[in-house]
Amino acid sequence: MIFHPETHYVRFASLALDCGAALAPVDVAYQAYGRLNAARSNAILILHAFSGDAHAAGINPQTGKPGWWDSMIGPGRAFDTDRYYVVCSNVLGGCRGTTGPSSINPATGQPYAMTFPVITIGDMVRLQKMLVDQLGIERLLAVAGGSMGGMQALQWAVSYPDRVAGVIPIAATARHSAQQIAFNEVGRQAIIADPDWNEGNYYATDRKPARGLAVARMVGHITYMSDTSMREKFGRRLRAKEKYGYDFSAEFEVESYLRYRGSEFVNRFDANSYLYITKAMDYFDLTNGSHSLAGVFARVQARFLVLSFTSDWLYPSYQSQEIVRALRSRNLDVAYCELPSAYGHDAFLVEVEEQAELVRGFLARTLRMQAAA
Amino acid sequence: MIFHPETHYVRFASLALDCGAALAPVDVAYQAYGRLNAARSNAILILHAFSGDAHAAGINPQTGKPGWWDSMIGPGRAFDTDRYYVVCSNVLGGCRGTTGPSSINPATGQPYAMTFPVITIGDMVRLQKMLVDQLGIERLLAVAGGSMGGMQALQWAVSYPDRVAGVIPIAATARHSAQQIAFNEVGRQAIIADPDWNEGNYYATDRKPARGLAVARMVGHITYMSDTSMREKFGRRLRAKEKYGYDFSAEFEVESYLRYRGSEFVNRFDANSYLYITKAMDYFDLTNGSHSLAGVFARVQARFLVLSFTSDWLYPSYQSQEIVRALRSRNLDVAYCELPSAYGHDAFLVEVEEQAELVRGFLARTLRMQAAA
Repeated sequence: MIFHPETHYVRFASLALDCGAALAPVDVAYQAYGRLNAARSNAILILHAFSGDAHAAGINPQTGKPGWWDSMIGPGRAFDTDRYYVVCSNVLGGCRGTTGPSSINPATGQPYAMTFPVITIGDMVRLQKMLVDQLGIERLLAVAGGSMGGMQALQWAVSYPDRVAGVIPIAATARHSAQQIAFNEVGRQAIIADPDWNEGNYYATDRKPARGLAVARMVGHITYMSDTSMREKFGRRLRAKEKYGYDFSAEFEVESYLRYRGSEFVNRFDANSYLYITKAMDYFDLTNGSHSLAGVFARVQARFLVLSFTSDWLYPSYQSQEIVRALRSRNLDVAYCELPSAYGHDAFLVEVEEQAELVRGFLARTLRMQAAA
Repeated sequence: MIFHPETHYVRFASLALDCGAALAPVDVAYQAYGRLNAARSNAILILHAFSGDAHAAGINPQTGKPGWWDSMIGPGRAFDTDRYYVVCSNVLGGCRGTTGPSSINPATGQPYAMTFPVITIGDMVRLQKMLVDQLGIERLLAVAGGSMGGMQALQWAVSYPDRVAGVIPIAATARHSAQQIAFNEVGRQAIIADPDWNEGNYYATDRKPARGLAVARMVGHITYMSDTSMREKFGRRLRAKEKYGYDFSAEFEVESYLRYRGSEFVNRFDANSYLYITKAMDYFDLTNGSHSLAGVFARVQARFLVLSFTSDWLYPSYQSQEIVRALRSRNLDVAYCELPSAYGHDAFLVEVEEQAELVRGFLARTLRMQAAA
């Protein structure tokens, strides 16, 4: 059944941030699918990855495009909107309706740009908790997300242990590694190197750092795929020619694909949001440098479904396994599956079948256990 | 024993290229260590990787810096200059003495810049063969190199089968994969996106595409290391502070390292050479799309030592194993070792001990077999 979700907006007077500053006011864009039951016990919060938004499922009536996790969310799907009330909000620092660096700073009447405070995954989750309060949901049945969404899910379990029954971190990590920071830093430097970035003050000009942002996105796309999936999708095939042209046009299909994805991204994403959100990911370390992940989980009560994918080299399985070991050492209820896939990090978006079955079973059992408690 | 090698230069009237054009004249910068024996049977050609140069061994008397493979080449070392005559030349398209896009086009009196023809690994090797002829060497004892140097070594075996007795391709491939092309394309796009690149015409200006080239190099450095080596070298350590600064300075040590390596590279490498040499690597496919690597090796006579490293994800071991299978199917004499290392692609430069032992034995046996033949 095709549905056309609307985006809702809610404004909060103020949000305290980890850096010590506060944002006032803060807007949140969110979508909701399905119906909240009378007991308010069937609510699931979906947490999006780096470049995602509130439009997780259904068809956007303007663009005709499906939500970023439409294959997993909807009537009869893994996150079954016939059974659950599913909410997804754009993250703090984003550019798709929630307050971020492109938003107007009421104090100046100008976009924040680089005066926007540096935010954390903890800040994103604090704002989501305000939204959940606003919606009258005392305890979430589950929080779920892939990549940066999985980091938020873990942060939820730690920050609000009595507010969530089930946690589903997919292709995620408890802390960004040196290599993960390095790839993000390259993206940031590509943007900052673009003169049209102009110290972040490009909103009032007719130019934006399109070239830098496109290069950043190209790097990202390589890390989202795997060596195998790139070979299968592109190999060494040339585009619209049979022989080398001995020039610097986009001759190989993989070059053409990356250039297209880079330039397309510029139309839907804000370069300053790129800087702030990647920085939040790099700051993410559940342990706060304490070296004991198990210690961080001391007050956690939720049950967990942790998923990773064999060919994901950006968020490799060992990072998920580190989370699982720490949870198990706390005697928490945790299921872990490493799913076979050649799609690399993108697998959490495209490998639906087995992922859906696992999520479906986990949610049903969590609901039963909550009802019995 | 410390030695201070000189760089020699030789000029050839003309070089025919795979693209159909010719370069005239062509200069080659090279260094040579040790002494050519009376039988001229102890000459080894060392082939450098992407950003290398002719200075493979010894100490540069101006800068005090050792050559890029100094740990492997010298008196008593793997490539023992007490026994062998070791030659290394800067590649065609380079910026360290051999003709490349920064060289003056005699037809115009201006640097070639982007009028330089697109070159191939085959072209690089054809020019090396002219140098070997000039030095009066009829048959090389060995050709050896890592990464792009290994591709040149393979090309030597195929292009000039009667001119080389031993071939040592290290951390190399018989053809660039989609992922390898993709990383190179990102580097090229970072350079081209820099307005100071100016369509390649920056030599007469006081600006060069330093920011774009630095970003390209940053991406490169991530791919040269491994997840493990980055974790061991940097982890999540902050630089000169204990707490997050909530700003966009280079806070993490890994950020600081990448920025430093990027900006340092700009001082020693030409951005247009970056474009041309990466393009040559991307064009590299020994099979020319024929799908039969074994067929390409039909006329090959040399014996091989093929090496790869466990943590090298840029030139993964399966690519070396593909070469080995094709050589074996031709009943050629081939030894293959996958060496354990956490250093990623950089391993061929830093993992000396075991690599040296294997090379030493291979060279000694090749020399004995050649003497007996």
